[in-house]
Amino acid sequence: MTTTATPTDHPLLGKHADALAEARAALAARSYYSRYPESPSPRVYGETAAADGLVAHEAHLDGRYAALADQPTDGTWVGSEVSPYGPVLGVQYPHLDVDRSLAAARAAMPSWRDAGPQVRAAVCLEVVDAVNARAFELANAVMHTSGQPFVMAFQAGGPHAQDRAVEAIVAGLVEQERVPTSVTWEKPAKDAPIRMVKDYRIVPRGVALVVGCNTFPTWNAYPGIFASLVTGNPVVIKPHPKAVLPLAITVEVARTVLRENGFDPDLVQLAVEADGEGLAKTLAERPEIAIIDYTGGPRFGEWLEREGAARGALVFTEKAGVNTVVVDSTDNLRGALGNLAFSLALYSGQMCTTPQNVYVPEDGIDTDEGHLSFEELSDRLAAAIGKLTSDDARAVEILGATVNDQVRTNAAGVEELAQRGGGSVVLAPRSVSHPAYPEAVVRAPGLVALDASSEEVYTRECFGPVTFLIRTTSTEQSLDRFVETVREHGAMTAAVWSTSEDVLEAARDAAAEAGVSLSENLTGPVFVNQTSAFSDYHGTGANPAANSAYTDAAYVANRFRVVTSRRHI
Amino acid sequence: MTTTATPTDHPLLGKHADALAEARAALAARSYYSRYPESPSPRVYGETAAADGLVAHEAHLDGRYAALADQPTDGTWVGSEVSPYGPVLGVQYPHLDVDRSLAAARAAMPSWRDAGPQVRAAVCLEVVDAVNARAFELANAVMHTSGQPFVMAFQAGGPHAQDRAVEAIVAGLVEQERVPTSVTWEKPAKDAPIRMVKDYRIVPRGVALVVGCNTFPTWNAYPGIFASLVTGNPVVIKPHPKAVLPLAITVEVARTVLRENGFDPDLVQLAVEADGEGLAKTLAERPEIAIIDYTGGPRFGEWLEREGAARGALVFTEKAGVNTVVVDSTDNLRGALGNLAFSLALYSGQMCTTPQNVYVPEDGIDTDEGHLSFEELSDRLAAAIGKLTSDDARAVEILGATVNDQVRTNAAGVEELAQRGGGSVVLAPRSVSHPAYPEAVVRAPGLVALDASSEEVYTRECFGPVTFLIRTTSTEQSLDRFVETVREHGAMTAAVWSTSEDVLEAARDAAAEAGVSLSENLTGPVFVNQTSAFSDYHGTGANPAANSAYTDAAYVANRFRVVTSRRHI
Repeated sequence: MTTTATPTDHPLLGKHADALAEARAALAARSYYSRYPESPSPRVYGETAAADGLVAHEAHLDGRYAALADQPTDGTWVGSEVSPYGPVLGVQYPHLDVDRSLAAARAAMPSWRDAGPQVRAAVCLEVVDAVNARAFELANAVMHTSGQPFVMAFQAGGPHAQDRAVEAIVAGLVEQERVPTSVTWEKPAKDAPIRMVKDYRIVPRGVALVVGCNTFPTWNAYPGIFASLVTGNPVVIKPHPKAVLPLAITVEVARTVLRENGFDPDLVQLAVEADGEGLAKTLAERPEIAIIDYTGGPRFGEWLEREGAARGALVFTEKAGVNTVVVDSTDNLRGALGNLAFSLALYSGQMCTTPQNVYVPEDGIDTDEGHLSFEELSDRLAAAIGKLTSDDARAVEILGATVNDQVRTNAAGVEELAQRGGGSVVLAPRSVSHPAYPEAVVRAPGLVALDASSEEVYTRECFGPVTFLIRTTSTEQSLDRFVETVREHGAMTAAVWSTSEDVLEAARDAAAEAGVSLSENLTGPVFVNQTSAFSDYHGTGANPAANSAYTDAAYVANRFRVVTSRRHI
Repeated sequence: MTTTATPTDHPLLGKHADALAEARAALAARSYYSRYPESPSPRVYGETAAADGLVAHEAHLDGRYAALADQPTDGTWVGSEVSPYGPVLGVQYPHLDVDRSLAAARAAMPSWRDAGPQVRAAVCLEVVDAVNARAFELANAVMHTSGQPFVMAFQAGGPHAQDRAVEAIVAGLVEQERVPTSVTWEKPAKDAPIRMVKDYRIVPRGVALVVGCNTFPTWNAYPGIFASLVTGNPVVIKPHPKAVLPLAITVEVARTVLRENGFDPDLVQLAVEADGEGLAKTLAERPEIAIIDYTGGPRFGEWLEREGAARGALVFTEKAGVNTVVVDSTDNLRGALGNLAFSLALYSGQMCTTPQNVYVPEDGIDTDEGHLSFEELSDRLAAAIGKLTSDDARAVEILGATVNDQVRTNAAGVEELAQRGGGSVVLAPRSVSHPAYPEAVVRAPGLVALDASSEEVYTRECFGPVTFLIRTTSTEQSLDRFVETVREHGAMTAAVWSTSEDVLEAARDAAAEAGVSLSENLTGPVFVNQTSAFSDYHGTGANPAANSAYTDAAYVANRFRVVTSRRHI
């Protein structure tokens, strides 16, 4: 009997067996699990880690990223990153030769396929561990490409992204392990039973393309990278041209770990583009590309979905939406306002999960501080935002810097938006001076009050520090608008505040109808914009904002296929 | 704490608990499992079952299928079925009002969603059991729409299709059960841990469309129907206009079982079209349609894939390919030839799994009866086919009847095909007279010898009783051609005969590269065209013939989505 045996002697198998078992159990339980500490404290990462990371970061600047020069390049160097905090990064990256790159990726595939799921998972985990060892270097890279404040860049760009990577690895591993390697099939028959042995072989789909985004270069790229890699597919990563460095570090680490473990480093390649080159499109149109993971604007996302389908490629997209909050009542006004204000302020509302539309009944809401009118609630929210962001030096550690001109234009346009919607500006996005980076454009959140009838304003994504307070006739109308707008325009997140169990139940039904996950009555240190790997799905795939979720079975099960060989015994 | 509890009191839960547990275990083990006996013997199905089934079948003919008149119809009746054996069926079916139909399907969705996976699985199993109770009636319906011989129509159209249905039900159930209903999440923090409860709710994607085919009206439709239904989606079934009756019976049964169990019968609807109406296209373009399962020609299949992607619908297709056999050597010539001859003869080669391209080295092959030249082997295969099909009365029980003019044209065109490819006709498809149905056009398999260079002939699907014996320079070239043609043109099946372990290993690698499953050295009662539910995947989704497989996790995992609601405790 010949079966495609899983290699059992790779040294990383033993090293990571316990960690993979733990992560497997956590994924099934969907309870709390984290492999990488989220605190940038010196007690956790070491006394010199922060300083060393900064030195490592600065060593990249104004020079060539030579550690990636062994990729299949065309000999040219590209790079145009400018920190949202001001400084030009000046890093030059080798530019791939697409033909050679894809040929090299395909050539690397058979031995990676034949290594089997367990070895692949162990190697992937080794990569993520090695990425974590460069957490402070990565934090600086994420901060100076996305504009995130430092601690957020450390956490979301580092441990949280790495936890999502481990989640994807283990989800892919579990999915492959559900298919037995070999079985004996015995069908009863008149005389002797008919017996066959059947071997099931996991085969990759082909080369995977991951298209990164500017705001979360690692967090939004890791799930696709590791889901494809663990299921046997080589990965070509096309970073956003303004957010290359975090993925360059990641790819350098991955290639090193692959090489050290006897695999072809060209299983992971970084495809940096010159500004305006359109490399994502060029790659997406190549027949070798069998899987595409994309985070970014809806136009190109929808084109990718069609292009992929036309050639039988799998496409996973996260695009845009109108994240929604329904405010009905609260028994903890201070907690609710503080929580919502922080959700709006964090990274100046530049998260794909930041609330945009807040529905409030025109008659106001009941609270533990008495009944508040729509206007009073609006003012209280504005005050909570003000409290959080009034001190510039403290504010920038929450707000970060605006990432691009569109965000700045949105922030500058609140008066016009209010006029267009027949509403009013409750709070203008305040201009904040960064004490360390005077060139950074920093904006505190702004609030615009609108009537529910001003759909043309609030049903479009208005990315950045602008939130609409939408006056409805009742919570019932709030929930109706919630369902309709999310079904049509998508959402990554939704939240409700209510003291009424009936309203909460109705909100859950509305969320199920809309196809978006719901956070209820958050008043503490958990925010609607944050999801926790292994427990919270990021996105649902059930509304137009994203066609998939980090990380459910559907996100991994189709990245590999099974080929059977059967014979009598 | 409010969770969406699974209803635990539905009477079918207890009735089917053991059966579902058995099927769950079988799916995980991928070993032999069958719920429904495949023998049409009176000892199994009862002394009067065959006669009763025929009576039931005949009662449908030349009249209206009134049991489906309670669907949301437009008041008109359509139907144009003619048995490939000759008789006009004369059954008229109610024609749906598409707007009302889809509105009814959507209206039926919430209570089906809220019934939960276990109740849905139990109701689905009840449907399949009830379908099995009408096995002989269905066998007649399948025979007189597809042209399959009776025993095959009974087996493939009945128990085997029903087993595939159970497989899809259980695959969908297991996938939903992997998501916990509710968990407590507890994150360690400085003071007290942060605790939340998270409820996970399974939500359907929307209305599912299943587009049936002419040759396997039930077998190819059931996986999609039940995979969508068990995951919470209403299903609209658009049968092939020449193969409606088997699905009409199925839908009648499903609607009855749904109604009897307190669910809306409009969860399952039959959308019969007038000839040339293009109803599949009309339905596929409707925004309500969120999932499409399709078996049929590649042109419309590819259009569906693009159209689906453009609006975010999931599309599962089985199209066409060039099924391949590599003959290298055998230690059981008689067994090998008998097995291959039967594979070619069964249903006159009108299975999507029937071999089309048989690669043989020009120097011939070694066998237990000595070395055979290419020509000798060709003649021996022709003789084996002749032996199997020389007696008309016995032959028709294997061959069935040709299903359409394209098949007849292909059979009639062997001389031209041979000329075009610079080859020769080894065996002309013999015209067989059906003793009971003189109007049936019955054809035994034909063989055409070609050189491997005549690609333009053998790389297109030539559906029906035509097989190409392709002369290669060596088994190595045979395997190369196998990989190239299947990667480019697709295949549902592949087989190899060889006594060399090295060749078998190379064939397995070739199958993995080509993305098609492989049967090795079949000489007994298992045929390359047959797959066994719960053990063999039908298709791989890894080559252009089909983008999915019956039934792996990828076939079910994306048919539902998960919506979380979370709150502090």
